[in-house]
Amino acid sequence: MHDVDMTEAPSLKLKIQIYRGGEIAMGPGKADLLDAIMRAGSISAAGRLLGMSYRRCWVLVEVMNRCWRLPLVETLSGGRNGGGAHVTETGQQVLAYYRALQRHMAQAADSDDWQALHSLLLPDD
Amino acid sequence: MHDVDMTEAPSLKLKIQIYRGGEIAMGPGKADLLDAIMRAGSISAAGRLLGMSYRRCWVLVEVMNRCWRLPLVETLSGGRNGGGAHVTETGQQVLAYYRALQRHMAQAADSDDWQALHSLLLPDD
Repeated sequence: MHDVDMTEAPSLKLKIQIYRGGEIAMGPGKADLLDAIMRAGSISAAGRLLGMSYRRCWVLVEVMNRCWRLPLVETLSGGRNGGGAHVTETGQQVLAYYRALQRHMAQAADSDDWQALHSLLLPDD
Repeated sequence: MHDVDMTEAPSLKLKIQIYRGGEIAMGPGKADLLDAIMRAGSISAAGRLLGMSYRRCWVLVEVMNRCWRLPLVETLSGGRNGGGAHVTETGQQVLAYYRALQRHMAQAADSDDWQALHSLLLPDD
């Protein structure tokens, strides 16, 4: 896909958000957090990887855990402020489907409409 | 597509942003502003339609006008604070391609991956 940074050529950015009951059950930030928890093994370590506060990560986990049929993240012994965390089987499924949807949408974005828009953009400085 | 409100069934929301030189050259808010200028005939009236401040609308117009090969919005006599505004031919083209891209992406989103995610979401309260 077409990720963005300040120096890159014109690009198309897609943000896919899944809503449930007025809350965002999954989106780019929550998917990255699941990835980070899988790598880091705890919410606090995931937050450090992402440069996010523990509190912010915890809020995202709580939202995810109440939106899906089963929790996406389980915290281990030590409770809220200690121990580790892991991404459940449901969490891994949700993440895999979300990443597949992102790839699918990125492919679909590479369309005649996008080419037409690209040709109308000023070239980069 | 799948627009969102607090009471609606689980839904997928797509945000398509077109970046150029680190700025968002087109996105949902700017597209709505172009639509509103076409309907209302001035930036200030468009702002009232959208519940946005004149200043905010003007900033969005300025960003759009410097990102594309030609301006998308032209202000008429009376200058910045008076007169009217209209969406140029280039502006209408950009808007049409952007709307087509939104429709195309909404169709693409209706995929097996989304169905799988949908089935994993808790039913609405």
